[in-house]
Amino acid sequence: VPERLVVVGGDAAGMSAASQARRRRGPDDLEIIAFERGDYTSYSACGIPYLIGGVVEEAERLIVRTPQVFRECQSIDVRMRQEVIEIDLDRRAVKARSADDGDETWQGFDELLIATGGIPRRPRLGNSDARGIFGVQTLNDGVAVGAFLDQRVPNRAVILGAGYIGLEMAEALISKGLQVTLVDQRSQPMSTFDPDMGAVIRQALTGMGIQVHTEESAVAFEQSDGLVTAVVTSERTLPTDMVVLGLGTAPNTEIATAAGVRIGPSGAIGVDPHMRTDVAGVWAAGDCVEKFHRVARKGVSIALGTHANKEGRIAGINLGGGDATFPGVLGTATSKVCGLELSRTGLNESEAADAGFEFGSATIDSTTRAGYYPGAADIKTKLVFERGSGRLLGGQIIGQEGAAKRIDVIAAALWNEMSVGEMVNLDLSYAPPFSPVWDPILIAARKAVQVVEG
Amino acid sequence: VPERLVVVGGDAAGMSAASQARRRRGPDDLEIIAFERGDYTSYSACGIPYLIGGVVEEAERLIVRTPQVFRECQSIDVRMRQEVIEIDLDRRAVKARSADDGDETWQGFDELLIATGGIPRRPRLGNSDARGIFGVQTLNDGVAVGAFLDQRVPNRAVILGAGYIGLEMAEALISKGLQVTLVDQRSQPMSTFDPDMGAVIRQALTGMGIQVHTEESAVAFEQSDGLVTAVVTSERTLPTDMVVLGLGTAPNTEIATAAGVRIGPSGAIGVDPHMRTDVAGVWAAGDCVEKFHRVARKGVSIALGTHANKEGRIAGINLGGGDATFPGVLGTATSKVCGLELSRTGLNESEAADAGFEFGSATIDSTTRAGYYPGAADIKTKLVFERGSGRLLGGQIIGQEGAAKRIDVIAAALWNEMSVGEMVNLDLSYAPPFSPVWDPILIAARKAVQVVEG
Repeated sequence: VPERLVVVGGDAAGMSAASQARRRRGPDDLEIIAFERGDYTSYSACGIPYLIGGVVEEAERLIVRTPQVFRECQSIDVRMRQEVIEIDLDRRAVKARSADDGDETWQGFDELLIATGGIPRRPRLGNSDARGIFGVQTLNDGVAVGAFLDQRVPNRAVILGAGYIGLEMAEALISKGLQVTLVDQRSQPMSTFDPDMGAVIRQALTGMGIQVHTEESAVAFEQSDGLVTAVVTSERTLPTDMVVLGLGTAPNTEIATAAGVRIGPSGAIGVDPHMRTDVAGVWAAGDCVEKFHRVARKGVSIALGTHANKEGRIAGINLGGGDATFPGVLGTATSKVCGLELSRTGLNESEAADAGFEFGSATIDSTTRAGYYPGAADIKTKLVFERGSGRLLGGQIIGQEGAAKRIDVIAAALWNEMSVGEMVNLDLSYAPPFSPVWDPILIAARKAVQVVEG
Repeated sequence: VPERLVVVGGDAAGMSAASQARRRRGPDDLEIIAFERGDYTSYSACGIPYLIGGVVEEAERLIVRTPQVFRECQSIDVRMRQEVIEIDLDRRAVKARSADDGDETWQGFDELLIATGGIPRRPRLGNSDARGIFGVQTLNDGVAVGAFLDQRVPNRAVILGAGYIGLEMAEALISKGLQVTLVDQRSQPMSTFDPDMGAVIRQALTGMGIQVHTEESAVAFEQSDGLVTAVVTSERTLPTDMVVLGLGTAPNTEIATAAGVRIGPSGAIGVDPHMRTDVAGVWAAGDCVEKFHRVARKGVSIALGTHANKEGRIAGINLGGGDATFPGVLGTATSKVCGLELSRTGLNESEAADAGFEFGSATIDSTTRAGYYPGAADIKTKLVFERGSGRLLGGQIIGQEGAAKRIDVIAAALWNEMSVGEMVNLDLSYAPPFSPVWDPILIAARKAVQVVEG
């Protein structure tokens, strides 16, 4: 009799794990059953704004692998529209409920992988069930927004939350011709960036015609005939034809918590580097788990598809009989809104302070290509580093085309605990179409060295 | 009386050093005299093909800083059109010859920086002094080619040497409407890439309409009325209206050798990490010096502006009373020819074999953006690594827009001696306009891990 692996959640982490486990153990050795409550497996959630904006024409294009392919090519028994609502650790079984008929069934397991992802934060306000108020977390959400845009042809949108999803949705809705207003209760858009960088982002957003209201929170929705008509904030009433919630997600730990699986200080499921929970035979991966932050040296809850895919792969290798560990994260992330590219990694200034570092910073302006080469665009690069040692702690980039992806070089330096003094001599590539002879990252490192040397 | 620093060569290395030294020591403490034999200081030699191709409109745009600015803003006594032809170490003086009147003058020094750069390799063939045969090393060369194109309006060009400069000149001349033929005596274009990658490059070049002849060397030029009319190769006669020499450079060590300064095994001037030669008070930097290759663990001669600028900076810091060392190079380089982007770092397969490594490799095809995102372009990524340990030894990238600069992430990993197994979990950024969720570099690392694990 083969062992049975049950996977709860059929997206990035869950299906990466299932695929890796299958690659190493055939169906005679390991039965794999995956429960997914939605209509899609393994899709690019990060592509949803581009689906809504019409950059991507069909929802199907965002699907990496369909349930049918998992079933037929990998012998993974994917059960769609089945939500796991309970884990019984004594019986080693999960209870699943059908989204279609509400039927509940028990399924036993030998090994269990919890990959329940995140749940979108929703404001608990009056009329929050009005039509025209959308989350953008699942592909189902994306399809719903697209249908609303087609049918209602709204003129105005209010986006709550000026983070990655908020900005990407702003681009999508601008491209559909809407007037867009961003509302965030924090003091700046993109609060994972420092205030000086946030000010630059705000200015760019305003320049695109986006209204940006910060230090302002939604207190109620107004509706008419069940359709949202305005967002009432702490400062004003914003008439609107639709609302998008970009308030981020919280780790979805409900069934894990109920079963008694250990939750970490960050609020996400605690796992060891092999992606094991504290319960034998129970694993977890993806947005629902706590990650080790390599610079802050503590557990954090960050929802990023890059992490979820890697964690799923690690869990799958181990479930497949291999031995792999997940070494932690830097929180590297990037986004694009119209012509503006943003990226960041590691600790920003306030995170560096929280982590107990004495830090300095250096910010420089340069160009993405040689200054004389056509298309040379602005790029602003900031490095945060430890005073004294000059150890790199984090980086932030704002710029135009060709700017954002350079954050990966900073991430690689940070991963290896380089100092800004060491970074100055990094042998980076140069040709006029791609860079000034001193790459912007090296210019930033040079300035940082000056700060360190006082 | 201030100390006197004499700099021989007024380009990247020499003027970087002079600027750094000046920043740390004022004119009352350090007198700085720089000799430059040409008409320009501190210009972007790598921009010359773009000047010739008309992408950059004026030669002046390639000049980073003029002699006048060095003189007036930094009190650096730049002496133009003065070639240093002898170093007298006993008298601590250099002899300079004027390009205008041939006058020779001696100039004493306390400290000397040799930054004589490279000399272009020229084939010693019949009629090699015919008009229409051009090097493209100095800005003067670039201006001369531009004038020839304007006045003669040639239809055909033969480029000898299919390396970086050869490819960039091919793009420039294609954009001017010429028929271009590349001739290289080696077995492939871009011989710093492995044969499998070279084959892809060849195919792309051919697809652009460029004739590519490899394993073929020029044996003579034909001329008529002093103007080149054909290149005779080992295989055929190629009628042409002009010839461009892209055969690379050799370190210009003539006066250093004559003075008895130590030359390293690579043929370039030997320096310690502070950029000191073996003679007290004599320093060297740039294309004329040997560099320590961090992976091959030996001295190499590589001519790259990125290295020259960094070495000049290091020498200048030390000359200015600071303490800095140059940690060596990886040989990271990149180029663009029409829509094709190329980049490489570290050791390729034959270099890995030469360095005594047992190596493996992994090559993958991916896209520069999420596959569903408009503009997603092909990117082929190859990693070379040590068998057993999986230690990264080098990387190569060929692709379309957005591909080449990713080599910097591989360079940063290589700098830090990462293994391919460690690289898989690097926290690189992701958003659909910039990358698939598994960055191509991570996909290559995953495949490499499979090769390592057998």
